[in-house]
Amino acid sequence: LSTLQVVVLAGGVGAARFLEGLVQVVPPDQITAIVNTGDDADFYGLRVCPDLDTVIYTLAGLVNPTTGWGIAGDTFACLDQLGTLGADTWFRLGDRDLATHLRRTTLLQSGASLSEATQLLCATLGVPVRLLPMTNESVRTIVETPDGHLPFQDYFVRRGQQDDVRGISFAGILDARPAPGVVDAIQGADAIILAPSNPFVSIAPILAVDGIRDALRRRRAHVAAVTPIIGGTAVKGPADHMLRTLGHDVSAVGVARHYREDIATFVLDAVDSSLTASIEQLGLRVVVAPTLMTGPIEKRALAERALEAALSTPAVVT
Amino acid sequence: LSTLQVVVLAGGVGAARFLEGLVQVVPPDQITAIVNTGDDADFYGLRVCPDLDTVIYTLAGLVNPTTGWGIAGDTFACLDQLGTLGADTWFRLGDRDLATHLRRTTLLQSGASLSEATQLLCATLGVPVRLLPMTNESVRTIVETPDGHLPFQDYFVRRGQQDDVRGISFAGILDARPAPGVVDAIQGADAIILAPSNPFVSIAPILAVDGIRDALRRRRAHVAAVTPIIGGTAVKGPADHMLRTLGHDVSAVGVARHYREDIATFVLDAVDSSLTASIEQLGLRVVVAPTLMTGPIEKRALAERALEAALSTPAVVT
Repeated sequence: LSTLQVVVLAGGVGAARFLEGLVQVVPPDQITAIVNTGDDADFYGLRVCPDLDTVIYTLAGLVNPTTGWGIAGDTFACLDQLGTLGADTWFRLGDRDLATHLRRTTLLQSGASLSEATQLLCATLGVPVRLLPMTNESVRTIVETPDGHLPFQDYFVRRGQQDDVRGISFAGILDARPAPGVVDAIQGADAIILAPSNPFVSIAPILAVDGIRDALRRRRAHVAAVTPIIGGTAVKGPADHMLRTLGHDVSAVGVARHYREDIATFVLDAVDSSLTASIEQLGLRVVVAPTLMTGPIEKRALAERALEAALSTPAVVT
Repeated sequence: LSTLQVVVLAGGVGAARFLEGLVQVVPPDQITAIVNTGDDADFYGLRVCPDLDTVIYTLAGLVNPTTGWGIAGDTFACLDQLGTLGADTWFRLGDRDLATHLRRTTLLQSGASLSEATQLLCATLGVPVRLLPMTNESVRTIVETPDGHLPFQDYFVRRGQQDDVRGISFAGILDARPAPGVVDAIQGADAIILAPSNPFVSIAPILAVDGIRDALRRRRAHVAAVTPIIGGTAVKGPADHMLRTLGHDVSAVGVARHYREDIATFVLDAVDSSLTASIEQLGLRVVVAPTLMTGPIEKRALAERALEAALSTPAVVT
């Protein structure tokens, strides 16, 4: 493992927890996480990057373990006062969390790229993994619902993921280029893992950035995806609801079918082992493993299985 | 007093405390405070208006009584974290205080003027006095010291007012127009009071905005200044040090001379009553009063004396 290069395509909480396991298996400086920025939003003029922040806080040991996002023990004095001043406060930014957004925004305003701002935040907080935003351009996930097209955080936080999702689009995607290092990392990776993140709003925006899906497919034999669906249910978030309203099987099969041209191996949860044949029929190899990351031991074990899955070339890649 | 219109030219702490007294004497909706914005600065991309904020927090009953600025009981979780992230933190912005700057900055970025942002902050925090920034344009006080020209907050906070002051200038002053309502308020005032603020960096920037000094001089017979110097010492801040290094008498006489063409009456502290003749020789009337605002009773008494001084036309105005 001494020279192994591993790439993880990452959303938020699920990816962060997966990376917590992976750093127990691979030296962190050999891990590159390419992180979704389609969830990014501006609040009070500050650039908030929820997925990057969740990964940063988790790998820095700062994350709130209850929510999976935000900083443990954070306070909300500023947000409460913003409410007094008549501002919207449905996006819960803690006082310490705000420092991240202030620092990032200042860096961006002074001409730094999001990559550079991310690198600085990681360095000061002691994040040992290399984190790359998928792009330095602005991409904004838009969720089509019966009530109209909603900015992602409106759908996800303000309205609590209750809306049926009829479609998803990525505003700005045509002008987005992969951030520096992204394509090289994929090309040079011995193993590429799609984290157990939402396929439609966490992984899809990354793959939609011009050049990233192509790079991934050239390494397809070494790409594995970890299921975000266990027993037909998303561990966290609205992936199951989205599968249903977007017309997919509400199961790991639905996810595997969605990924089938991009990956070689699908890591299926043990409770779903009866789905193995259905996924193999898609032309994918299946690795069955416990995927619920309840603690450090489970996280490490899942990372080991996913890494093995991505490293070993399957017999047939179509 | 039922229709009396009173205007106060205001800096920060001294002016805020003076206004606390004045609202006990005059209905607050008959008071207009025209506030210095030369101290304004941007931190982390946020617009901070220290004098406006001090007046707002004081009149909203939120101010930290120990410092005279900031919010009582405020916490510093965000600032501490900003320090962890490598940002400068010498300007001590509390968590609740930050909400003000976030809200103001958002409003300014969405096209509101500083006047409008101030009005909204006052309305939401229950400030009953009409607060007007001196201008909606950017004016920045620059302090000339032996170590060079320093932005005001660098001189005042970061370097702790230790530098000798050789000169003061106001960047942007030639392009600054009085904020809406400022000149009308002065023209319509029955009494105009220069608060016990720093003459050089609190009151001077206001008077330097094109049209404000002229409007004041047309009402000169009803303009009184309250001394910020008692017994040769500034109650707060570097006014005494500035008087010395700028070549003025380090006394109330130095202040009175500085103001002599703009005011009719000088409110001198009782401990300085021996200076009465010297100030009268400048062509000013002198009202002797206790000016140290140690509590609500003293604040009210000073406001009454200053108001009387400004209302009563002196025998001779040259």
